[in-house]
Amino acid sequence: VQTPTQGRADPLVTGALERWERQGLTAEPWPFLAICSVSRLQQILTKALDAELSTFRISRTGYFLLTTLALITGGSARLSTLSRLISVHPTTVKLTIDQLETEGLVARRAHPRDRRTTLVEITESGLQCARATNEALTQPKTAPLDEMSELYEDLFRALQPVRTAAGDTDL
Amino acid sequence: VQTPTQGRADPLVTGALERWERQGLTAEPWPFLAICSVSRLQQILTKALDAELSTFRISRTGYFLLTTLALITGGSARLSTLSRLISVHPTTVKLTIDQLETEGLVARRAHPRDRRTTLVEITESGLQCARATNEALTQPKTAPLDEMSELYEDLFRALQPVRTAAGDTDL
Repeated sequence: VQTPTQGRADPLVTGALERWERQGLTAEPWPFLAICSVSRLQQILTKALDAELSTFRISRTGYFLLTTLALITGGSARLSTLSRLISVHPTTVKLTIDQLETEGLVARRAHPRDRRTTLVEITESGLQCARATNEALTQPKTAPLDEMSELYEDLFRALQPVRTAAGDTDL
Repeated sequence: VQTPTQGRADPLVTGALERWERQGLTAEPWPFLAICSVSRLQQILTKALDAELSTFRISRTGYFLLTTLALITGGSARLSTLSRLISVHPTTVKLTIDQLETEGLVARRAHPRDRRTTLVEITESGLQCARATNEALTQPKTAPLDEMSELYEDLFRALQPVRTAAGDTDL
């Protein structure tokens, strides 16, 4: 991420910065502004993703799980691995996998080398759903995702330094 | 946000991109990667903020509310305005304001021109707490915030284009 030298002319930034100094806050404004921005963006994306996925009968977590499984060679993983990869609580992952299994998008099977371990495997229908949902997100039909679709690559790359600094190297 | 031309050499990006194509996903990988990144970063920051704020006896929402009030001229606002500004449900805002009031960090008073409306006003103790917590976040003592503190300004600026595209201009 480069710091644009003209950044201070941005009315949003200038507004917040001016208020910060005028109101006698002595610390740096950046932790507050950055953490608030991430939180607000996360909420915008959560709502927007639910709207865009509503026609596919899968939840946001279902979408993350199917796409993650589609990216794994062989298309299967343990529940605990999936929970770690998508950063979602194991209980939520289990419930979502139950729903996806009912829809025929994933299947449970025993681990080939450890019969006590259960693997979740994506089905052919699941793979089609992963392809279709990601196509839909590339050409979104609902606001505000339609306005954001050109910005995802920049957004992902811009978050890499801070995620790396925090030790988050999955993905 | 500039797209770095050397970005494709980043092992994290390249890994995900290679898997994407190898596994036959036809859509663009950027919506999935960007949305996952925001979600993971939000969870990292949530946990990290709770750790750093634990010595101040205020919650994350309490911190957002106090800093937001500290930034408002006059230091007071309606509950509904605060809810909108920090993008948190009115019920959660009300409960957090109750806690902050018990600690003497905010006070409720009637709106000077509309007695039926209640305003939340930051107290001198609240202002001191807002200053102290933001100082603490500028010089964080806990991991991983200590590794991230140099990156907040870039992070905030990098999120501006996508937040603006989504129509989020508060802050």
